[in-house]
Order: sequence, then C-alpha cells, then structure tokens
Amino acid sequence: MKIEQVWKDLEKDLAAVEQCLSQNLHSRAPLISEVGFHILSGGGKRIRPLLLLLSAKACGYRGARHYLLGSIVEYIHTASLLHDDVIDEASIRRGQASANSVFGNQASILVGDFLYSKALYLAVREQNQEIMDVLSDATTVMSEGEVMQLASIGNLELTEEEYLTVVTNKTAVLISAACHLGAILADAAATWKQAMVQFGLDIGIAFQLIDDALDYAAQEGKLGKKIGKDLMEGKVTLPVIHLLRHSAAAEQFRIRAIFEDGTPDTDDADFVQDCIARYDSINYTMQQAQSHIETAKRHLDPIEDSSAKDALFAVSDYISRRQR
Amino acid sequence: MKIEQVWKDLEKDLAAVEQCLSQNLHSRAPLISEVGFHILSGGGKRIRPLLLLLSAKACGYRGARHYLLGSIVEYIHTASLLHDDVIDEASIRRGQASANSVFGNQASILVGDFLYSKALYLAVREQNQEIMDVLSDATTVMSEGEVMQLASIGNLELTEEEYLTVVTNKTAVLISAACHLGAILADAAATWKQAMVQFGLDIGIAFQLIDDALDYAAQEGKLGKKIGKDLMEGKVTLPVIHLLRHSAAAEQFRIRAIFEDGTPDTDDADFVQDCIARYDSINYTMQQAQSHIETAKRHLDPIEDSSAKDALFAVSDYISRRQR
Repeated sequence: MKIEQVWKDLEKDLAAVEQCLSQNLHSRAPLISEVGFHILSGGGKRIRPLLLLLSAKACGYRGARHYLLGSIVEYIHTASLLHDDVIDEASIRRGQASANSVFGNQASILVGDFLYSKALYLAVREQNQEIMDVLSDATTVMSEGEVMQLASIGNLELTEEEYLTVVTNKTAVLISAACHLGAILADAAATWKQAMVQFGLDIGIAFQLIDDALDYAAQEGKLGKKIGKDLMEGKVTLPVIHLLRHSAAAEQFRIRAIFEDGTPDTDDADFVQDCIARYDSINYTMQQAQSHIETAKRHLDPIEDSSAKDALFAVSDYISRRQR
Repeated sequence: MKIEQVWKDLEKDLAAVEQCLSQNLHSRAPLISEVGFHILSGGGKRIRPLLLLLSAKACGYRGARHYLLGSIVEYIHTASLLHDDVIDEASIRRGQASANSVFGNQASILVGDFLYSKALYLAVREQNQEIMDVLSDATTVMSEGEVMQLASIGNLELTEEEYLTVVTNKTAVLISAACHLGAILADAAATWKQAMVQFGLDIGIAFQLIDDALDYAAQEGKLGKKIGKDLMEGKVTLPVIHLLRHSAAAEQFRIRAIFEDGTPDTDDADFVQDCIARYDSINYTMQQAQSHIETAKRHLDPIEDSSAKDALFAVSDYISRRQR
C-alpha cells in the first residue's frame, strides 16, 4: 500500500478528526481560537491522529471515539509546538509565520497551556482510566524530555544513548501513546497493546532521527546561505554525536568551540556542514532511523493482517522517506 | 480562631503536603528539581493546600489522601506562576529573584509544563473520576482566564462584570477546586460539596481583588519611587475600572492615554496614583473584596460547626486582611 492510498482511504476519518479539532477550540476567549486556528491550519500532517485511527482499526475497533482521541493527541502535540517555538525563538513554522511571531510569546505560552488542559479535560470526560493513565504519563514524560533537551544544549559529552533517551521522551512517547490508545479503544489483548506501544516508540524515534538528519541535509549545497536550526540553537543531535566520534582532533576542537561559543556564523556552519558530509554523519543517522523503522514493523508481528495493518506499514515507510 | 492557631494546628498536615511537594519533584532531568525547588521554597503560603485540608476535615474526612491532593493543587498553582513570570517579564517573585531571571524563560516554561503534567499524572493515579473532572475543568478554565486577561490588556472599556469573569477564571476557580476536592475526599453530601465550591469561588475572588488593590496601595506615599506592576503591564483591574467610572473627563483622557501608550513613566504613575487616592478606588476594591468574604462565609451555613469550619472562617479573615 502507498501512503497516497492511506490518505485517500482515511479522508473521511481525518475530516472527522479535523472537526473535533476546530469544534473544541471554541472558547469565551476569542484569542484562543485565533492562535489555535493559526497553528492547526498551518499544514501539519496529522501523523499522530492517523496512527491512532489506524491502530484502532488494525485492532478491530468499530466505534467513533477515535476521532476525538485523535484530536486530543494532536492538541497535545500542538501545545508542545507552541511552547517549542517560543523556546527556540522560531519565526517560521512549516513555511509560515510562527504563532509567536504573529501573536507574541505571551499568547503562544497561554494558548499552549489551554490546549494541554483542554486535551486532558476532553480525555477525562471519556471516563476511561486506562486512557487517562496513558495520556497523563505521555505528557509528563514529554515535558521531562523537553527539559532534558534544554539541559543538554551545548553538551558535547552527550552520548548516543543519552540522546536516544531525550528523543524517546520528547517525541516517541506521544507517538507511542497514539498507537496505544487505538488498541485501548479496540479493547485489544495485552499482547496487541504492547505491540502497538513498541511500534509507536520505534517509529517515533525514527521520526525524530530523520528530523535531526534533515536539519543538516537541508543545508547541503547551500554553503554560506543558511545555518541549520539545531546548530544555531546548540542542540546536540545524532549527526553531531557521530561526527565527534569520527572526526580528527583538530576538527573536534573547532566543532566544540563552535557549540560552546553558541553564536555560529556562516563560516562555522560551512565547516560543520563540510565535516558532516565527509564523515557521512547524515547517512549514519538515516540508517539508524531505518533500523528503527524495521524494528517497528517487526513489533506488529502479533497483529492480524488487515488493510489497516498494511496502512501502518505504509505510514512507517512514509516516515522513513520523508524529505521534511 | 486566629490564623496563627490554624497554622499551628495544621503544622504536621502542612509538613506532609511539603513532603509530597518535594518528593514528586524528583526527575531524570535535574533541572526540574532545581527550578521546582527554587519556586516552591520561595515563601508561598500554601493557601490552596490549606483550604483543601480544612475543607476535607470540615466535611469529616479521616484519611490521608488530602496531603497528595493538596500538593497537586499547589503544583498547578506553581506552574501558573512560572508561566506568569515569563509573561510579565517579572524579575522578582515574593521578594526573591524569579525563576525566569535565575534559570531563563525556557526553563520556566518547560518546568511549568512539567508541573502541570505531573499534577494531572498524580491525580489520575488516584483513580477517582470526580477528582479528575474537577481538576481538569479547573486547569482549563484557569488557562482561559489567563488568555482573557492577556486579551484585555490596555482595554479600558473592560466592565466590572467582565473583570470579575477574568478574576473568577484565572484565580477563583482553582481555589474553589481546592475546597471542592476536600469535600469530594470526604464523600460529603451534594449540598456540602456545593457549599465548598461556592465558598471557594468567593474567597478566590476576594483574594484577587485584594491583590489588585494592594498593587496600587503599595505605591501610596512613594510618589516617584516605583510604578505599580499592573499599571506597568497595562492590566486593567478594579481600582482602574472604578476610577474611570468616577473621574472627570480630563483625568479620564490622560488615564486612557497612559494605558494606551503602554510605557508609563513615574509622572504618569504619580498621576494615576493620585487619582486613585482621590476617588477612593482602593477602598472601593477592598470593600468589594470584603463583601465577597462575607458571602463566602455564609455559603458555609449548611456545613456542621467544627474547629475545621472555624479555621475556614479564620483563613477567610486572613485573606481579607492580608497586606501582601
């Protein structure tokens, strides 16, 4: 199955998720709808709701609660984007002006808080303890991951293992929760639920690894034009960890100086970019991602074959091939 | 009963709340404990846990879950303080350096997110639907109140009624939830629960009104020294709403210009301060607060007399008399 087919098959389901997303933005504070609409209509791919819908279907769910739950997971993700953009002082999000640059940091922080709260509020009304356990665990671990990432800025001693812990917490746990929730809705057997949890963790890790690889890949052939976001912010990601493990002492010395100084110029960026190309650090990161994608697929072994399961494979391949 | 007696009688209970507060700050991200410890040890009076403990006792609760629930409500309050200080660009909180000025805005935003999430995580583990309904409702309404306040900055058409809606949402609903949760723990009758909800709303409104009055009162006799926080931030509070209702046209003209300009100097502040004194706007605000305190006390009529109920009266009087 191709991803285009998945989008087509789920068109109506995803439209139902969109309806939940816009419906629950209504508030006595119109600024909430404005900011929420701005970021939610900014071209997100709804990967998390998509995974939740497919996981529910693959586990045999036939009800209609997966629309609301999909929107809840997307609200949590959106809240984290609003706060991330304030933290990274981002001016662009998905090619559009970021919410903080249009509405200010204050509105982004507070509407982020609202979306977090509203997501949990809506989930609580489902009166399902297991759903609340999963969601409240995911949001807590996510925020720990975000703090870990902040604390690791400029830390060039960060190991690949520590980096994977950050990535698992800040990104993979919510994607895993989306897959898990589908199985919970379907009242699936424990082995199926565990399969979905593990599947989600591995595609979640792959998703972030590819993001981190693309941040350097996007700069290739653009010497002197633009400095990658992660380098600019001093975020130590897998391409850099790999590079530091393989580069020569003199190169390492300069790379460390660039990260420690914290204000890279285009010369610095060109140098890092050149090293990353020479030591094949983007490829290494992509290969690691691919390996997580394959592991993820194997986790689905216990789940009965179905078109929804095929679609989950298609989404996995889509994640591994995405260009941004 | 005097408030000193209340603090003394509840010394052990409040110490148990403190233990929950510090225990649940542990995280794999040490920055969370650092920021959390900084703000939690900054001299907060633990009014919300205190009210929860007393409400539980007044409704006949004999268990030990009120300690954890008290700490959960305090976490939610603390999270909102962390975000408020970023939003207000505050450098001082309770006479100490604010968390954002010590650890940066990024850490304050993310640790605030962690405290919100952790609070709901801990609450979910109590496996009590009613508790989750109350808490998730309170946090959602709170964040709406914060957005309403942001949207009303510099809005001199804000009516007293609209202002009370903002105050109810951003401050009173969480205080009310604290009182409500005590009654829920005690499995109190519906009339008692409602009594606690209403009591909490009115002391919560009074609490905020006094805060807003004190912001101008603190500047009295300090002409040219310091500009009140609310005026500096363009927050339209009850003293200003009262003033605009009673001052002469020429004065109103200048007051509007000051708020619309958004960068008051000490001359502007002196002028506003002088008008507020002449039109007795602080007294009006204090009287409104006092009236809410009296209403709050009457809400407790259905509740059986006890030393815990006396203590709730003492806390009400303490709120109405507090000087900062």
